[in-house]
Amino acid sequence: MMELLSPQALEAALRDVGARRYHNLHPFHRLLHGGRLTRDQVRAWALNRYYYQAMIPIKDAAIMARMHDPALRRIWRQRIVDHDGVEEGDGGIERWLKLTDGLDLPRDYVVSTRGLLPATRFAVEAYVHFVRDRSLLEAIASSLTELFSPKIISERVSGMLAGYDFIGRDTLAYFDKRLSQAPRDADFALDYVRQHAVTPELQQAVIAALTFKCDVLWSQLDALHHAYVSPGLPPPGAWTPGAEQQA
Amino acid sequence: MMELLSPQALEAALRDVGARRYHNLHPFHRLLHGGRLTRDQVRAWALNRYYYQAMIPIKDAAIMARMHDPALRRIWRQRIVDHDGVEEGDGGIERWLKLTDGLDLPRDYVVSTRGLLPATRFAVEAYVHFVRDRSLLEAIASSLTELFSPKIISERVSGMLAGYDFIGRDTLAYFDKRLSQAPRDADFALDYVRQHAVTPELQQAVIAALTFKCDVLWSQLDALHHAYVSPGLPPPGAWTPGAEQQA
Repeated sequence: MMELLSPQALEAALRDVGARRYHNLHPFHRLLHGGRLTRDQVRAWALNRYYYQAMIPIKDAAIMARMHDPALRRIWRQRIVDHDGVEEGDGGIERWLKLTDGLDLPRDYVVSTRGLLPATRFAVEAYVHFVRDRSLLEAIASSLTELFSPKIISERVSGMLAGYDFIGRDTLAYFDKRLSQAPRDADFALDYVRQHAVTPELQQAVIAALTFKCDVLWSQLDALHHAYVSPGLPPPGAWTPGAEQQA
Repeated sequence: MMELLSPQALEAALRDVGARRYHNLHPFHRLLHGGRLTRDQVRAWALNRYYYQAMIPIKDAAIMARMHDPALRRIWRQRIVDHDGVEEGDGGIERWLKLTDGLDLPRDYVVSTRGLLPATRFAVEAYVHFVRDRSLLEAIASSLTELFSPKIISERVSGMLAGYDFIGRDTLAYFDKRLSQAPRDADFALDYVRQHAVTPELQQAVIAALTFKCDVLWSQLDALHHAYVSPGLPPPGAWTPGAEQQA
């Protein structure tokens, strides 16, 4: 039989999911942050991760479309503003494109998602479908990986600046912004989950939602690792160095 | 066989739908604007129409969740800002509640939607489902009733101020805002539709989407008319004068 956790114990259980399953533990991230990838491997990562970034506002709009409280929508709306920006040339998606620019990936090619690994697409779309189809509480809980992102971001920025001479501070502007945005978002979502997961069943659903989201992030790195590191077998149609130059 | 219309001819066809089917033609609106309803009939209208207002941001978030272009999402986002406001106490939903306040309908009761006519709920939800399930072009086209709203709003405001001593200018603040917001939104949507409905089939789909939306608005007035004017038979559970006072 499941027992009802205190809000503190629920938070601890959620943090434990992150400690065991967040993608900072993935071998690909260790290579990335340790400066041990080639420029082309970093390009593959930036190209694929673009799709995740680009779909975040769609995911957040799908969540907003399920919120019947204007006050809750106003808070959630800020996530869309952060990613889409206030005007052209602004926002998180644009800052991610600064990174792919810095890696000499043409924007048209990146935005077309032509060279995406199918597993990236499937994982990201699984996330969008999850927030659309599951309960609002589970949808909000699935965003809780933000709890763990400040750590990975600071490791990533310092590791990449130190490890790669082809990466500069301006190219990594995306992550500077996220260092303040992510904790604000995570604090709100954690508070919401602590308040609303008031039965053992809801608490288990919330923990499962965060586990699912960790799987979404982890499987993207699995696919990158398989395609571009070891054994290094990109599936048919996926980007290979130079593919971005072909019409 | 269908023929391809010029953008001008398509716009004319859309305006023709409005000229024949927009709800300003409905007998209930003629009574409302002509000052010929009782206070309770006006209350029934404001109570039911609240649900339409409250669901508009949900409808718009569902549309945004289908837009893959950040620039398009930024433009559409403004509709959500207009309805939800920038902060507590702001926005179109709040201004609608000023109207129901002015009609002595307790906010808790209005927001609970307990007294709603089932037909109101079904029509509004049909609209949300339409924009979620049909093409993005059809979803955008369904918003084109805004083309016709400045006319109805100005008739409504002057008619209601003249006709009802229980309605004041401040109570009608909602409509003042819409007089500037609606044309901006409609111009954008019309331009989008003119650009994107590039085959006879798409043009017919766009005309059908606007027709559908006119049906959504019209059927809400049919239900009000039936329940509260003639024959005046509210369905079981629907609001009747005084019901808002009962727990």
